[in-house]
Amino acid sequence: MTSGFSHSSSVNKPCPHSKCQDCLGRIQRYIVTKLGEDWLFLVLLGFTMALISWSMDYASAKSLQAYKWMYVELKGNVPLQYLAWVTYPIILIVFSSLFCHLVAPQAIGSGIPELKTILRGVVLKEYLTLKAFVAKVIGLTASLGSGMPLGKEGPFVHIASICAAVLSRVLSIFTGVYENPYGYTDILTVGCAVGVGCCFGTPLGGVLFSIEVTSTYFAVRNYWRGYFAATFSAFIFRVLSVWNKDSVTITALFRTNFRMEFPFDLQELPAFAVIGISCGFLGAFFVYLNRQVVLFMRRPTALTRFLTKHRLIYPAVVTLIIATFTFPPGFGQFMAGELMPRECINSLFDNFTWTKIWRSASPPGLGRSAMWLHPHVSVFIILLLFFIMKFWMSAVSTTMPIPSGAFMPVFILGAAFGRLVGEIMATLFPNGILFDGIVYRILPGGYAVIGAAAMTGAVTHTVSTAVICFELTGQISHILPMMVAVILANMVAQGLQPSLYDSIIQVKKLPYLPELGFGHISKYNIFVEDIMVRKVKFLSPQSTYRELDLLLQSTTLKTFPLVDSKESMILLGSIERCELQAACDWWLSAERRVYNQGQGISSPGSKVSWECFTFIDEEEQEENKEKVRPKWIHRGAAHSIVCSVATVYHCDITTDATFDWPLQIKAWEEAEMDKPIDIDHIRIDPSPFQLVERTSLHKTHTLFSLLGLSHAYVTSIGKLVGVVALKEVSPCLFLFSYFRKHACLGEINLLWD
Amino acid sequence: MTSGFSHSSSVNKPCPHSKCQDCLGRIQRYIVTKLGEDWLFLVLLGFTMALISWSMDYASAKSLQAYKWMYVELKGNVPLQYLAWVTYPIILIVFSSLFCHLVAPQAIGSGIPELKTILRGVVLKEYLTLKAFVAKVIGLTASLGSGMPLGKEGPFVHIASICAAVLSRVLSIFTGVYENPYGYTDILTVGCAVGVGCCFGTPLGGVLFSIEVTSTYFAVRNYWRGYFAATFSAFIFRVLSVWNKDSVTITALFRTNFRMEFPFDLQELPAFAVIGISCGFLGAFFVYLNRQVVLFMRRPTALTRFLTKHRLIYPAVVTLIIATFTFPPGFGQFMAGELMPRECINSLFDNFTWTKIWRSASPPGLGRSAMWLHPHVSVFIILLLFFIMKFWMSAVSTTMPIPSGAFMPVFILGAAFGRLVGEIMATLFPNGILFDGIVYRILPGGYAVIGAAAMTGAVTHTVSTAVICFELTGQISHILPMMVAVILANMVAQGLQPSLYDSIIQVKKLPYLPELGFGHISKYNIFVEDIMVRKVKFLSPQSTYRELDLLLQSTTLKTFPLVDSKESMILLGSIERCELQAACDWWLSAERRVYNQGQGISSPGSKVSWECFTFIDEEEQEENKEKVRPKWIHRGAAHSIVCSVATVYHCDITTDATFDWPLQIKAWEEAEMDKPIDIDHIRIDPSPFQLVERTSLHKTHTLFSLLGLSHAYVTSIGKLVGVVALKEVSPCLFLFSYFRKHACLGEINLLWD
Repeated sequence: MTSGFSHSSSVNKPCPHSKCQDCLGRIQRYIVTKLGEDWLFLVLLGFTMALISWSMDYASAKSLQAYKWMYVELKGNVPLQYLAWVTYPIILIVFSSLFCHLVAPQAIGSGIPELKTILRGVVLKEYLTLKAFVAKVIGLTASLGSGMPLGKEGPFVHIASICAAVLSRVLSIFTGVYENPYGYTDILTVGCAVGVGCCFGTPLGGVLFSIEVTSTYFAVRNYWRGYFAATFSAFIFRVLSVWNKDSVTITALFRTNFRMEFPFDLQELPAFAVIGISCGFLGAFFVYLNRQVVLFMRRPTALTRFLTKHRLIYPAVVTLIIATFTFPPGFGQFMAGELMPRECINSLFDNFTWTKIWRSASPPGLGRSAMWLHPHVSVFIILLLFFIMKFWMSAVSTTMPIPSGAFMPVFILGAAFGRLVGEIMATLFPNGILFDGIVYRILPGGYAVIGAAAMTGAVTHTVSTAVICFELTGQISHILPMMVAVILANMVAQGLQPSLYDSIIQVKKLPYLPELGFGHISKYNIFVEDIMVRKVKFLSPQSTYRELDLLLQSTTLKTFPLVDSKESMILLGSIERCELQAACDWWLSAERRVYNQGQGISSPGSKVSWECFTFIDEEEQEENKEKVRPKWIHRGAAHSIVCSVATVYHCDITTDATFDWPLQIKAWEEAEMDKPIDIDHIRIDPSPFQLVERTSLHKTHTLFSLLGLSHAYVTSIGKLVGVVALKEVSPCLFLFSYFRKHACLGEINLLWD
Repeated sequence: MTSGFSHSSSVNKPCPHSKCQDCLGRIQRYIVTKLGEDWLFLVLLGFTMALISWSMDYASAKSLQAYKWMYVELKGNVPLQYLAWVTYPIILIVFSSLFCHLVAPQAIGSGIPELKTILRGVVLKEYLTLKAFVAKVIGLTASLGSGMPLGKEGPFVHIASICAAVLSRVLSIFTGVYENPYGYTDILTVGCAVGVGCCFGTPLGGVLFSIEVTSTYFAVRNYWRGYFAATFSAFIFRVLSVWNKDSVTITALFRTNFRMEFPFDLQELPAFAVIGISCGFLGAFFVYLNRQVVLFMRRPTALTRFLTKHRLIYPAVVTLIIATFTFPPGFGQFMAGELMPRECINSLFDNFTWTKIWRSASPPGLGRSAMWLHPHVSVFIILLLFFIMKFWMSAVSTTMPIPSGAFMPVFILGAAFGRLVGEIMATLFPNGILFDGIVYRILPGGYAVIGAAAMTGAVTHTVSTAVICFELTGQISHILPMMVAVILANMVAQGLQPSLYDSIIQVKKLPYLPELGFGHISKYNIFVEDIMVRKVKFLSPQSTYRELDLLLQSTTLKTFPLVDSKESMILLGSIERCELQAACDWWLSAERRVYNQGQGISSPGSKVSWECFTFIDEEEQEENKEKVRPKWIHRGAAHSIVCSVATVYHCDITTDATFDWPLQIKAWEEAEMDKPIDIDHIRIDPSPFQLVERTSLHKTHTLFSLLGLSHAYVTSIGKLVGVVALKEVSPCLFLFSYFRKHACLGEINLLWD
């Protein structure tokens, strides 16, 4: 502020400057409020993420260019070529792994499973820090630049969520923490949407995918906010590429160019359905394979112990094997090994029919698609080999300890599978489809798009991959067959395996309440009373400090219920563990003892002990009773005051009584322990969540998901009769009875022990 | 069952037939379970709605054909032509109005506002019945066949919801009511999605639009189910039209054919933004205008009283005026009056630039678009006149008492506005855009699509209209500018007016908790204690029947809290009004009195009076105490038994005591009234929803929306201190303090009294 009149005494006096000052203050407040508004947060988030996404694409594209340049320059010298082909990705992957290990190990992996857990209300330590952000961005750029089958989508969700969390913290400086009406969940949900949206410039698919993947219940206002931020982000992302002359105007990333007047015939529908169902099985198998690799690595054998000790060997060896297989002059020639991930997609979505142009002159505009046409080997064999090899490569490479996602690799797998079916169809119906006198060719590229959507849908258990596909290709002509294929793939995959993200959650043993699957719900007719824990540890105002101490030592619960009395058992509220610990510690603290003994042991009682602080500030006397509680806001300050008081008394006492000091303390403590707890000075949560015995498990599940509860007390007309918990009290009981009684996901049981 | 061995006594004996029977029973149960499964419900719902949607389209298209045929046949005789042009829609609209009035007045209007209210947990009587279904389907077909600016979308949401509710009731015969895990809300949500989805064959947009319009919190499982059902429905809807040879294959309803390689230039973006912002203002004005018309009609003047008395005059007059204006040889020639709604859209989305072909030879394939090219009047004037005339026509015609929606009329308005801007742009840049040596024309049709999305978005306050537009046109090339325009339109419109559906909710005074708007949230820092009602009417086990009776007579509350005692005020649960009424009635009933007096007045007490029923069935004695409660499941049966008992005693008593009978009854009643209520035999809800005093209004709003609460008790460490209600206790207080303190929607205040 420029005016110097802001001392408090001048406020009440009429002053010529006060009006001016008032006005200035109002302007300042207005600016500050505007700066903290929601739309600014959304715009900034979108802009930052678009910039990051574009820079990362740019850097990794340059890295891949350098890789290919090196390979081409060394043509003629196969051993040296092989060395370059293998060394380049190994260096990048090892760098990525080392960097993440040193800076923030939280940056390893996809990010979606962890975000899903965080959005469920669980705090994962150090997961949303700037350090993790830096590690993830740099590690991911290196990973993507290596040409390995790794994706960007999952890590981008993590990056965007960190960005959102940090941004909201920065913006709350302007508005104050309490002004911000949006919770952590709201902020992270938008972060997820922006992450997916700006990853490939697919705002709509981004919002929907993030909803499906991360939430069980979704606030429609976040749909709005996600839509806004993701659109802005995708817009900037695409504008940046226009500005960089990558494309002439804002168009889709993998634009297709299928004919629109007759995209497909109804007779082709069975083939689309076959793609959907097959992708369901293949997607489930992918999840299974990926989990088996991780579980194998976690089994304590001599090999895994060795690999855990020497962390960099595993990614290096995996990269070596994959690069060796894809080496173009070697086996790579039979699986289009020279194509980098994005080239793969572009060529698989192209408008040619490969079986028709194979062994004939290349048509103009074929470009990189020529890689699929081997002079001696049929297109079918190449596609099949590509699919099989990339299948295990993708499943293995996503288990490396680097930031990496599985969406893009699975997308490529699906596109290859779809293309294979499409080429087979084109061979079976070489003359295309005759309709109204016009012959329409079969478009294998359309099959590839449908396959990509179905496969990613099956692996992630989402249906919005169809939307991502529309936005990626810029064509919506195949909408209905694609949606049908995605639904079929989902139905098959959901019946066989959990989604890839749920699978990782299970393997990593993250605390998460699994989703009620499609069609499983109708079996649920057990009630809370069947699963609740009846032996509840509770407190009452009559409990003594000895009982409290015993309770704290014998359990690890985070909250305890408070009842009216042991007889009535009427639930009054719940108390947090830390509150009780603080109360207990204070009760037996040296400060209190010394003070009490100084006051005379005959006058104990909490009231007196608190009043001793009234001398701190004469004016605050009134508020003091409220403020001074076991859990101090100014605990440090108060503590030092107590100590100084204690020192004074200590001097008094030591002069009087130097005999049997430890014995006296013991006696005092014993006496104090038998007093009833001072419930008035402990902070109570007056309305813990309550259920009734006859609440169905289905409803309980809904409420736990909806409100993000960790536990709930079961009451019967006010009386506490039991407790149900998500993770603290009875995770096994709850989840096991959940799974055991409805063994539709039978295999998962084994993972939960 | 075919085997005759199913009497209960044979169950425990080993029997050669029991295995076979067991097997048969299992098969039967399996079939029944499968029949009741969720996917069957979704498929049936989708199929039914697709059939209805297609039939309705077919019927209304035939009706419009007949209308036009009549008009063309009478060419040359203008007066007769006018008569036909005017009479045909009047007959249809009046028929629709009369039919709805006679069969089910609930069928009048859009349906989305009511569904929104129902999904909020409010029961609207007679709203989801078969009668309303029939009235809506037939009324809507007639309305659509009249060629008036009326839409199909809103009523279709209503039709699909009825269909879903009825279907689930039918299917629950197979599974039993308690087996069905999905609540009413889940069923209706899917109904809404299917309704929008099969209306124009836009499954994805349908799901998203229904989410945005109807929900505040959305269960992701319903997204899945809606997606499935809507896709199936849209698929069948489009297949039916292929089967009917309307189209060659499954394509979009209003397919556009814009070039894809360069849909638009970045320099055109400001024009798109202008469309978005203007549509925001126009959309808000549309909502305002529509409301003003309704409010005018509701004001008690002589005119409106007359119109209310003669219900059919208003729709007839409105139709007469609109038809007169659109009469093609008259004023209609200046506003393309001959075009029916769907022709309008198709021509507005076409690929020509009208300003260029005006006054020159018509290019091939122009078709109905020729209507926009008047030989003497500029295209701009025609478009402007069309927009202005259709604007008020749409706003007025949607207020007629017939089933009608506003989505399509608004969509046409937006398309016309966008086209106008597009044509202006094409005139300003007649040479198009030069890029990389190629000249690209400006596509006015693309502007029309963006305008349509922005305008519908502004009126409905949704962003998923963009998705509906993609699906309707089958092209996604304009995705980013369209999403930007829709967001801008929403921002402007949300700041000015409530959405059309919220506006109707307010005008109709439906009980609904308004949504927290974009950016309004940050102002909310009041707490439950600020708005709660502190003087709570409560019951305790010590309350007498006299107090209970007084309570019931003095209030209209639906539930009453039960506390431990007047002193402690510890909340034990809540009791429904009907329970209390039944308990009170029973306590003073003639049956109980006669029985009690027979037993001897000295032995009252509930226990005894209940035990009298034990003779009903000797075997059920154990269960009786549980079963026999004031609210009888078998109330009829029990009542008749009581009567027969009473008759017996009555005989006894009448022979003994025929003197001062009424006086004795009075005395007995007075004595009984002072007894404490028999709390053990009243059904108590043991866990009513509780809040704490310091719960913020924002959180309260969230919880109320999330859990669909109608009221919540405010407790402080178990003690009842107040109550907050959505509609029963303090709608005005809650909503008023809500609006008054945050007068961002200032105008609405006036509507809520």
